[in-house]
Amino acid sequence: MSNAYAVVMAGGAGTRFWPLSRGLTPKQLLPLGGQNESLIRATVRRVAALIPPERVLIVTSEALVDAIAKELPEVPRENILAEPTGRNTAPCVAWAAATIARKDPTGVLVVLAADHHMADEAAYLEVVRRAVAAAAGGEMVTVGIKPTRPETGYGYLEVGEAISDGVMRAKRFVEKPDLARATDFLRAGNYLWNSGQFFFRADAVLEAVAKHLPELSAALKQYDDAAAKGEEASLVKKTYGSLPNISIDHGIMEKAERVAVIHGDFGWSDVGSWTTAYELAPKDATGNAAPADSVFVDATNNYVKASSKKVVAIIGMHDLVVVDTEDALLIVPRERAQDVREIVAVLKARNDISRL
Amino acid sequence: MSNAYAVVMAGGAGTRFWPLSRGLTPKQLLPLGGQNESLIRATVRRVAALIPPERVLIVTSEALVDAIAKELPEVPRENILAEPTGRNTAPCVAWAAATIARKDPTGVLVVLAADHHMADEAAYLEVVRRAVAAAAGGEMVTVGIKPTRPETGYGYLEVGEAISDGVMRAKRFVEKPDLARATDFLRAGNYLWNSGQFFFRADAVLEAVAKHLPELSAALKQYDDAAAKGEEASLVKKTYGSLPNISIDHGIMEKAERVAVIHGDFGWSDVGSWTTAYELAPKDATGNAAPADSVFVDATNNYVKASSKKVVAIIGMHDLVVVDTEDALLIVPRERAQDVREIVAVLKARNDISRL
Repeated sequence: MSNAYAVVMAGGAGTRFWPLSRGLTPKQLLPLGGQNESLIRATVRRVAALIPPERVLIVTSEALVDAIAKELPEVPRENILAEPTGRNTAPCVAWAAATIARKDPTGVLVVLAADHHMADEAAYLEVVRRAVAAAAGGEMVTVGIKPTRPETGYGYLEVGEAISDGVMRAKRFVEKPDLARATDFLRAGNYLWNSGQFFFRADAVLEAVAKHLPELSAALKQYDDAAAKGEEASLVKKTYGSLPNISIDHGIMEKAERVAVIHGDFGWSDVGSWTTAYELAPKDATGNAAPADSVFVDATNNYVKASSKKVVAIIGMHDLVVVDTEDALLIVPRERAQDVREIVAVLKARNDISRL
Repeated sequence: MSNAYAVVMAGGAGTRFWPLSRGLTPKQLLPLGGQNESLIRATVRRVAALIPPERVLIVTSEALVDAIAKELPEVPRENILAEPTGRNTAPCVAWAAATIARKDPTGVLVVLAADHHMADEAAYLEVVRRAVAAAAGGEMVTVGIKPTRPETGYGYLEVGEAISDGVMRAKRFVEKPDLARATDFLRAGNYLWNSGQFFFRADAVLEAVAKHLPELSAALKQYDDAAAKGEEASLVKKTYGSLPNISIDHGIMEKAERVAVIHGDFGWSDVGSWTTAYELAPKDATGNAAPADSVFVDATNNYVKASSKKVVAIIGMHDLVVVDTEDALLIVPRERAQDVREIVAVLKARNDISRL
């Protein structure tokens, strides 16, 4: 069986966790999964039984390389690929595939978001094992999640016939639908959420890139040549920004031939907002998720993030999100957590760079 | 006309403004009157046209002497009388009267709380002038405020016949009543709130002390003798704790003969809680009283206190009190501001001395 390589996509900036998330400490570096562990560390740990650190590649922005290297010191520094500029996921995955293929063309890429959460880690690992096995056999595999609501923020997969145990043909990818279509998909029953995890052999995905994104494929060949001469970094710096700005879903998976989907039932979450962070956090008997020395008087189901130096006291309030940092304090009802983006917009308009 | 002396009672600790008020920065040292000025500084400034700093006496606890001297550097240090322990207002006022009487027996004491607010300062000063004049003529004068609600937290004065322009006989003092009596007083129309301000000549109040609190009077004579030898401070340290623990209202004013009341109509407030602080604070068009760089999204009528280093962002919340300090954060609906005492009780039970 081919070796599995984790390709962790960690370029995201993300403003939905302001004021905790900032330019240099984005979501993936925050402990939002309910434990004292950053989301990216959890991502690497969850697959560690299959993939040792030397086979973990991380693709991120230049600005985040140092922070990620510090967070994951066991991952060799040369395994952190620095994007000079974000070009969506197709160039990111293809570059990682090319890097792996130089040493191990039949190696299987396990492409993971750096900032998701899986509640049942044993079930998750079992799905990864099966996906890797299918990918080793030549399939382009993705993991689909059974929808629980007509979510318009995710892509969907239409599921076809079974190929092997738990693995099914993916008939098509659907971009984020409107509410009417999402409701139809939920009702139809044969649609799954696209969780953004991909499994394929390096040679298989590079072949698909050659077929569907020839421009990107040509650039990768130049990267291979430069790498042989130890000049890849400078070439990437010069040319990465001109690669096609397209997602792996849209650029490759939608057009590829042997695309399969595995149904993942392991409590997947993309940790989309403070609301989700509250759901994942450990809570006391009154439903408050807060530092131990917080004081609640007639106050329930609140989510509090604050430094251990600060005592937070709340009277008569329920279902609040309170996030306190050195230079900013956010107070928002949990159901409006997504409106944090409006605060970020104001700070951008003010050019308040230190708080972004 | 006799000289007027301010006697500022500044011994209060106060927990109703936690987390801003602490043991060493109690309410009177906080800028709660809507301006960038502590309540005690405003107290002294308001009467400055009548009373220069060298005739301002401040009675406070030993622990607060340094902070008050720093806040009011223009007041001579020897004018700050340090109580080794709080013994209510009768010993405090009587000691100040004795101190003044040594140099100026017919001097008029203007006894003021250090932590009240007067909205109309011109009207207030006019009332002070008239009260001083009546006191110079031998009256024991207090200022009554027309009740606007059946408040059970204040004492009341029953008003009798007119003595002179705006000055009336005070028929009796009533301690904090229950709601039924307070409602009766409000309906009766001839009751005023006792605002805790007193005006009397030093010799007049000392005579009343001799008559009604002879034990206190004897102690004051010893203080006079010790003062003549430069030994007052050590005697006070030894004996102040054994003085009768009684209020000036109860111990003197209720029993004195020539007690008068002036109706004060100048927007008096005892600044009793964060609710009042909000009422006094300057507000923007959406009713928020907050540092200039705060961000409000669909959020109105909030009161925010925070360091200028911090941006406070509030979404979808109304009528909140938010007070952020270095080591504590309070969030409470304005109408429940008085429940701050419950937080303080928890911190006391924890023996969290640094936050009290």
